[in-house]
This record gives sequence, structure tokens and C-alpha cells, in this order.
Amino acid sequence: MLMKPFFMNLDFKSGALTPSDRVNVRKLSHMKGMFFDAEAERRTLEKGDPLIYSFSEKILPEENGHLQLATTIIYPGKIGDEYFMTKGHYHRRSDTSEAYMGMDGEGYLVAQTAEGDFEPIPIRPGVVAYIPPYWGHRMVNTGSAPFVFFAVYPGDAGHNYGDIEKAGFVRVLVERNGKPLLIDNPKWKKG
Amino acid sequence: MLMKPFFMNLDFKSGALTPSDRVNVRKLSHMKGMFFDAEAERRTLEKGDPLIYSFSEKILPEENGHLQLATTIIYPGKIGDEYFMTKGHYHRRSDTSEAYMGMDGEGYLVAQTAEGDFEPIPIRPGVVAYIPPYWGHRMVNTGSAPFVFFAVYPGDAGHNYGDIEKAGFVRVLVERNGKPLLIDNPKWKKG
Repeated sequence: MLMKPFFMNLDFKSGALTPSDRVNVRKLSHMKGMFFDAEAERRTLEKGDPLIYSFSEKILPEENGHLQLATTIIYPGKIGDEYFMTKGHYHRRSDTSEAYMGMDGEGYLVAQTAEGDFEPIPIRPGVVAYIPPYWGHRMVNTGSAPFVFFAVYPGDAGHNYGDIEKAGFVRVLVERNGKPLLIDNPKWKKG
Repeated sequence: MLMKPFFMNLDFKSGALTPSDRVNVRKLSHMKGMFFDAEAERRTLEKGDPLIYSFSEKILPEENGHLQLATTIIYPGKIGDEYFMTKGHYHRRSDTSEAYMGMDGEGYLVAQTAEGDFEPIPIRPGVVAYIPPYWGHRMVNTGSAPFVFFAVYPGDAGHNYGDIEKAGFVRVLVERNGKPLLIDNPKWKKG
């Protein structure tokens, strides 16, 4: 029995994807050690466990030839000086790409290779960013409102969080004098 | 040398994709025999060669793991009673899917399999339609303004127009009493 064509609604203003099959939440406790200021992380977790981001996805076959579709909301906030962000990942099938489309709010795509190439791209509503094969990628909310984006990637891309959970990205986005600034990540080393 | 991440702007109102690498136009003379009323096609071509649709695309590698990104504009109009539409295609790699997102105007996605399964989906701005592997697909402008949509599909999907150029789709969209109506296509037969 073949899968039939179907549709969802993507709200251009809010980025809401309806209906979706699954909503996933990532709180600070799911991202331990990923923000560079460990002391700020510890202080924050003493007071609570803030929601960093959530994503709504359609469940589609994780097979070559299919696509995956998801909307992500990164909430506004910081751990120490570092803006709320996604965990970031390479693809398990590292030779697969991804397209992001900014829907609401503002932030940055940070992309890097295992060799340490690094590219930041500012994302606003209507910006479609293309992440070619082999580039790890993370989104960061540098604004004061939720940062919402829609993502499309190959069905069999998969996720590889491992290298990024250990060493993070080459540079991290912190607030300095009320503005986002990229600074070197002292923890980063080649994977 | 790895391809670097890059971005484009997708105008949520007009669907314009900038910058794009290539704009392709499809006039009626490029679609000979694809509208079911051959006499209306002949009469129209005597007076001129109307632009049926155009699409702007980013040139990306036609390789597994990459994605393709394009915006299409179908102009409003009819050949006889049949609404302007895209040529429609299966994918050369028939086990690949595609996602369409309505940006402006209104129309229909018509999808079919080689076995004659048929599914029409109304498309409005914000509707994201998923076309699973093996479904041929065509977009049809049933409104009075340009119908604009954004498409994402696997890099190595390719296009197979052959079967559709010969036999078309199971059903065709015609205007009856000012409204779109799906009627059987007398020319259609199993591929």
C-alpha cells in the first residue's frame, strides 16, 4: 500500500505546523554541558529547568528518497551570556544537506565542518539557508522573541549529536553590550 | 573544496526567490498536446504563444544527499475550459518525494500513480503538501491571479515527463459555471 499525498498548514507568521505527529521539547537538563558557561548552567538549574526549544515534526519514513519536515521554536533567553540555541548536529549520513527557512523572530545559523571551517548566517523571516553535505549546524535565538524556522532534509539523513555534545561549535554566540557577538569556544577541538 | 552554506530570500507574499541561478519559462508551444482541447490549443496558438508558467531555481548538484529548491509561478488563464498548469512529471528516480508550499494565489496539486490512483489537494498560501515516492504531480492555477509555490525535492530526483506528455493525468481541471471541476481525461491510459 503506497503512502498517499497529504498536506499540513504552515502559518507564515507563527511557523506553526498543523497537524504534526510529534512535539519534542528540549529543556536545559537535556543539554547539560552544551552552553560554555558551566557555572551559569549550574545556577540556572538550581532555580528551575527552562525550556530552550521545541520542535513539531511530521513522522515520515527515515528512508532515502523521502524528506523530513519540521518546525522549531527556540525561546528567547541566555545561559550566562550565551543565547538559547539548538543542540546542533551533523547528519548521521554526513553527505546529506538541509534547508532552513526563517519564519518568525531572528537568529543565526552557525555551520561548521569537522575540520573547523565555520560559517555564520543571519536568519530572518523569509531567509532560506542551504546547508550542504558535511556541515554541522545549529540555530541560535539572538532576539527577544521566539525564533521560529521550518526545516526540510533528506529522509535518511539522521542525526549525529556526538561530536557536538563533546566539543560544541568553533564559535559561540554571546550577548555583549546588548548585541550578539561570535567568540571563540575554548572547548572546541577538531572531531 | 566543500560547498559552503549560503542563503536566499523567499518573499512570503510574492514567492520570489532571490538570488536564483536560472529562470525557466514554459509557453504553450512548449506544452503541445498537453491540454485536452486540441482545437482550443490550435486557436490560441494562432493568436500568440501565451506564457503558462515560469520557475526560478537555485542550481545545486543533482546528487543523492543534496536538495533542489525552486519557486514556480503559474499565470492565470485557460486553454478552452482547462486551467493553466505545469507539465507535470514523475521523478526519474521514481522512489523520491517532493514537498510543495503554497505562497500566493490558489490552485490544486493533482497527483497520480502509474496504476491510476489519483489525489487532488487544494493549495493555498501556507499549505505544505507532501508527495510521496511514486506519485506523479502537477500544479494547476484555478484562480484569477498568479499561483505561486515553493518546491523542495531530493537532489537526484530528476524529472520524467515522458508518460505524462503522452497520456496526461487521470483527471483534468476545467472551469464549469465559474468554478473548478475535475473531469475524467479521455486521453488517459495506464502507463
